Amino acid sequence: MALKKILIVSGTHGNEINPVWAVNQFSKHNDANVNHIEYKYTIGNPLAFERGCRYIDNDLNRSFNSTKDNLDNSIYEINRANYLVEKFGVNGSDPCDIAIDLHTTTSNMGTSIVMYGRRIKDFCLAALLQHKFGLPIYLHEKDQKQTGFLVEAWPCGLVIEIGSVAQNFYDPKIINRFLIIIKALRDEINKLKNNQIKLAKDLVVHVHQGSIDYPREKNGNINALIHPSRMNQDWKPIKTSDPLFMDMEGNTQTYKGEDTIWPVFIGEVAYKEKNIAMSFTKKEVLGLSDHVCEEFFS
Amino acid sequence: MALKKILIVSGTHGNEINPVWAVNQFSKHNDANVNHIEYKYTIGNPLAFERGCRYIDNDLNRSFNSTKDNLDNSIYEINRANYLVEKFGVNGSDPCDIAIDLHTTTSNMGTSIVMYGRRIKDFCLAALLQHKFGLPIYLHEKDQKQTGFLVEAWPCGLVIEIGSVAQNFYDPKIINRFLIIIKALRDEINKLKNNQIKLAKDLVVHVHQGSIDYPREKNGNINALIHPSRMNQDWKPIKTSDPLFMDMEGNTQTYKGEDTIWPVFIGEVAYKEKNIAMSFTKKEVLGLSDHVCEEFFS
Repeated sequence: MALKKILIVSGTHGNEINPVWAVNQFSKHNDANVNHIEYKYTIGNPLAFERGCRYIDNDLNRSFNSTKDNLDNSIYEINRANYLVEKFGVNGSDPCDIAIDLHTTTSNMGTSIVMYGRRIKDFCLAALLQHKFGLPIYLHEKDQKQTGFLVEAWPCGLVIEIGSVAQNFYDPKIINRFLIIIKALRDEINKLKNNQIKLAKDLVVHVHQGSIDYPREKNGNINALIHPSRMNQDWKPIKTSDPLFMDMEGNTQTYKGEDTIWPVFIGEVAYKEKNIAMSFTKKEVLGLSDHVCEEFFS
Repeated sequence: MALKKILIVSGTHGNEINPVWAVNQFSKHNDANVNHIEYKYTIGNPLAFERGCRYIDNDLNRSFNSTKDNLDNSIYEINRANYLVEKFGVNGSDPCDIAIDLHTTTSNMGTSIVMYGRRIKDFCLAALLQHKFGLPIYLHEKDQKQTGFLVEAWPCGLVIEIGSVAQNFYDPKIINRFLIIIKALRDEINKLKNNQIKLAKDLVVHVHQGSIDYPREKNGNINALIHPSRMNQDWKPIKTSDPLFMDMEGNTQTYKGEDTIWPVFIGEVAYKEKNIAMSFTKKEVLGLSDHVCEEFFS
């Protein structure tokens, strides 16, 4: 595969505004094409960005599973997904080989990589970033309730997720973290092409196991919150009997499972509507062939 | 004035959810009527709370200036303001003497008191809370662009503003701060009635001077953000030539005024639509007569 174009998407969720600012700033001060690796920029959901909301009709980042079959003109995000694939997809008018989708979270996850399913090209790209920055990788798979992620519409693609930051809140620290990633990505690919770096053979990933909702009353109202000792503790292991939630009476609800798990997206604001209080992962170590990655990026 | 009922309002902005939780928790575990001081509870904007947005049609906390004249049935918040005054207003069916409106901010303001105009009863109540907790007081006045605040529809009323916390994000620390205020308010009034405390004669207030917008391009797009050194520095003085904003080129825009000012609501997410990047205050020391306050609370 001759690598040429990398699509940098920001504002896939309209209220995640720091990546939009970072991309704008980067593109103003950097050539789009360096070492024959070209960045293309797009705002995923421009109307939602303008309005400061996550989406108009549907979550755009769950709207890519059926772009060809599902031509529902009444849903803004389905149309937008179709447009993006028709323009920047591998068979589009301005085809890109890789999609990097930039997101923020209200959870205290720091900078992390999110990947969907076990595509070898995604592992190569994730390995590159983990090699450079030591970032944790969240592998999202086997969740039938959540499908149709943007990057899946490209043969290779990752989400870069940075938090914690409030929705619609400009934070220079968060912007700076995105700038570092955007700047480094192309440079690192170029180094790998020229055999200036060697990726580790083992890749540590946090594999999605499931999500849990807040405890709720029969009428659907949340009746217990993330336990104070669990707040902001993303990526930190949870063992049997560790606290998860606390109700208004001060009663603690604990983790009943036997296996140690690692939580992510603890208390993410946008996931309340998806009935997710946090997601659970398990660690897995994957072997990676240098050969495959070098070929991919060459 | 025989003090009887204090109206505790939460969820005046539907995406400020921590006060709603705190009030719910408090009311479940405490008698409404203690020492002949009764708490009444209401959610200011229940529909916006249900939907997780600030408001439906208009900001409810700017909808109380014309409740009698402005019976526009098509605007949810005007109807809601009318309802609240007709029910809990001094001439309402369940009249309250004082309104306490609980808000959160995405700014790093800590716990503060906001008051509107110079009503002597408000000063007494603010003095009580400042005496107990040493809270800063933001006196909002002379801003013709912003009127119609909820508490102004009662003869006495204050806003309690706590931050920083993201919209729609439950934070146990923030909830706990609201619980402390709700619990203390009635106890302190009771102590004052019984001459168990004596208020300070001087009240330090931060008086609103004006607000400034983000620097913008001609098309209205923001082109400079809060300067990194100004982020989270609410209540900290700004002097001539101190940095305010930084643009994408790294250029700093500074404060040109000659007088020292104290900023509040730095980067508040909800104020972007009001073209406010931060507000400026000046400190003022007000003399307060013990006699007036003791009479008010007796």
